[in-house]
Amino acid sequence: MVPHLRTALTEALSSIEEKMLSSTPMIERWFRMEWQEHTPPFYTSVDLRNAGFKISPVDTNLFPNGFDHLAEEMFPLATQAAMAAIEKYCPDARNLLIIPETDLSQPNYLRNLAQMTKIFRLTGLNVRLGSLSDDITQPTQVDLGDGESLTIERLERNGRRITLDGGKFDPCTILLNNDLSNGAPLILQNIHEQTLLPPLHAGWSVRRKSNHFAAYDEVVKKFSKAMDIDPWLINPLHTQLADLDFTNESGETALIAAVESLLKKITKKYKEYGITEKPFVMIKVDAGTDGVGVLSVRNAAEIKELGLQNRCNNCTDKDGLCVRNVLIQEGVPTIETRHGAVAEPVVYMIDRYVVGGFYRIHANKGITDNLNTEGMTFETLPFVKESERRADDLGLKYNRFYTYGVVARLAMLAASIELEKTDPDPDHHIS
Amino acid sequence: MVPHLRTALTEALSSIEEKMLSSTPMIERWFRMEWQEHTPPFYTSVDLRNAGFKISPVDTNLFPNGFDHLAEEMFPLATQAAMAAIEKYCPDARNLLIIPETDLSQPNYLRNLAQMTKIFRLTGLNVRLGSLSDDITQPTQVDLGDGESLTIERLERNGRRITLDGGKFDPCTILLNNDLSNGAPLILQNIHEQTLLPPLHAGWSVRRKSNHFAAYDEVVKKFSKAMDIDPWLINPLHTQLADLDFTNESGETALIAAVESLLKKITKKYKEYGITEKPFVMIKVDAGTDGVGVLSVRNAAEIKELGLQNRCNNCTDKDGLCVRNVLIQEGVPTIETRHGAVAEPVVYMIDRYVVGGFYRIHANKGITDNLNTEGMTFETLPFVKESERRADDLGLKYNRFYTYGVVARLAMLAASIELEKTDPDPDHHIS
Repeated sequence: MVPHLRTALTEALSSIEEKMLSSTPMIERWFRMEWQEHTPPFYTSVDLRNAGFKISPVDTNLFPNGFDHLAEEMFPLATQAAMAAIEKYCPDARNLLIIPETDLSQPNYLRNLAQMTKIFRLTGLNVRLGSLSDDITQPTQVDLGDGESLTIERLERNGRRITLDGGKFDPCTILLNNDLSNGAPLILQNIHEQTLLPPLHAGWSVRRKSNHFAAYDEVVKKFSKAMDIDPWLINPLHTQLADLDFTNESGETALIAAVESLLKKITKKYKEYGITEKPFVMIKVDAGTDGVGVLSVRNAAEIKELGLQNRCNNCTDKDGLCVRNVLIQEGVPTIETRHGAVAEPVVYMIDRYVVGGFYRIHANKGITDNLNTEGMTFETLPFVKESERRADDLGLKYNRFYTYGVVARLAMLAASIELEKTDPDPDHHIS
Repeated sequence: MVPHLRTALTEALSSIEEKMLSSTPMIERWFRMEWQEHTPPFYTSVDLRNAGFKISPVDTNLFPNGFDHLAEEMFPLATQAAMAAIEKYCPDARNLLIIPETDLSQPNYLRNLAQMTKIFRLTGLNVRLGSLSDDITQPTQVDLGDGESLTIERLERNGRRITLDGGKFDPCTILLNNDLSNGAPLILQNIHEQTLLPPLHAGWSVRRKSNHFAAYDEVVKKFSKAMDIDPWLINPLHTQLADLDFTNESGETALIAAVESLLKKITKKYKEYGITEKPFVMIKVDAGTDGVGVLSVRNAAEIKELGLQNRCNNCTDKDGLCVRNVLIQEGVPTIETRHGAVAEPVVYMIDRYVVGGFYRIHANKGITDNLNTEGMTFETLPFVKESERRADDLGLKYNRFYTYGVVARLAMLAASIELEKTDPDPDHHIS
């Protein structure tokens, strides 16, 4: 179900972990039943926060781009999961086309691409890379820095199909590793004969965090009932604000009111559980990728300090809060640290299987900050060996990655439901 | 598709290996399409022979009992494959009942059971062991010798269902790890509400090697056509003799004629490929397990030396040749050796996935002998690390286990077809 990866946790099991570890048969059965009803995204990564008293997903990425941070042992596992996924969409596939980000200047990202390519080649597919960039007019070698290289080719629209190499490479499945922040390019539109994974409406120009967390609410409600736990233990409180206008005072006023209301609710929950820490909220752009425009706020005064109205004189979507739709989420502090720096686990899944994970670490951030910002580093979570488990030290007796795998899969299930609900053509779904 | 395990092969790739490694996209696609039509056995192990000039399965076991010989790295892989298998038969399963062999005196076998139990517990199932033995009247602890133990319970027939613990443990799936050589016991008959895996007609009291190899002929014919190779390269020639009577001379006479005819065919093939070794055949009981009654023979004189007619004065089924149905198979020598002893690879699969493998080694046997006899030892095939692969020594550049994985999966596919064709209730099949 969830491979035993070595987390940094060495203290006693939290009550959430205890509950999950003792309920694995119920939990795994619950997921099996859910996957009879819903189709998991082709691949998913989920950023988590473990506060000890609660564990929550904070971001569900449908275009995971950190395969280079996974342990080598994940290859057979990821390959097997990828086989299961491909089989579902395209059993007669020979070829797989991967469409990467257009910006190929980041060595990390190239290594991610190389790992992805390797996984899908190991499934026995011919894998080639086709770019949406206008700069790629012919096959272009991109150096990986370790003596190996990747060849990026020009995408072609060939009537109703997308191909490479003058139509010679005609894939059955097209795997997007480009989050389409700038919208779905014309060349990818109205593709009906080939399977585009994930579908275009998973792109960040269309996707809304509020839809995701609404689906997550639904998933958690059902799961918590089955588990007999308080949903709050795995779900951050949140509220959505639409049509905020930051060009005058009304936007700020509405935001402050909503933040204060949410902080009150969190305070009440903290009291219920005897948590003495100071509550905070994260303010996020409802549409958008990564850590762009994520603010950590403890009170109304901090919002005033942001001077949102002034910032909006030069309003663009990218700088964060000059947008009209905002998601306010209960902030979840992280108890995970690596070498003194705060860390948060990231879980990688292909089809419905957890295949690996790593820590996102930020030396200059605190336990309540967004870590997905410049300066972050990554640390692979290695697979635990049987001999280590038996030694029963370093917290290896139990698979403490299991709980992360459960919460990440709940977020993945939410993404499945989100994609179903937002699908412009609902007939697509394999049931 | 097939994890990269470290074989002992270090010489240049054989032409079969070259062909298979360069055809992986075609091969993997071929299997994907076949698994759309056929349901793989729940689990399978296949003994292979690699002669260099040809690679063949020699035994396809539907009750694999060597999980203890697999590398530790297979756990996540085997667990994931087991999840896929369980999901197919019983998505709402909470409990899995394993029925082991009744003889629990072999430490090896107990370790196999412990590993199996671990794999299925990792999928999130409650796993318990129920014995067919009359000696088990109450929960019995069996010591594994390493401080751990297994609890074996008494099987109960509870109306239409099989249960443990006075009906408290009521499994959805029942996994047989008992090859039913002595027939299907009454308690397992007419089970319709629970899924028995593999089904009763996979038991050795019913199963016939000739059915298996007839199905294998069919599979290889189709595969070889797609691959454009001579089927002989992956299929031993064979012939089936029914109703041989060894109580008088007629049995021996018919056997000699058939052996001479098969040896002629092999000689012809050897000439075609310029193979200078001396051909031999294996004479096997058509029904039966393991290495019981497998004889390696080079000419008619060797058959006469066996004195079959005299041996049949005290005729039982177990001593090998006092039976009426015999399979004569082209013998495939093995080029694999470990520490100077002859070896043959054994491939382990769960559902349609290769999860691991090991060598069966016999220091006192030759390259044409059956190795599945007393005195055999086992050596785990470890997973190859990326850093080892790059070093490009010890033959690790290519996944040479791949070819074994392909031939083993062909044999597994043959077993699927065999089980379909021999099913007393053909409506069972999931399509």
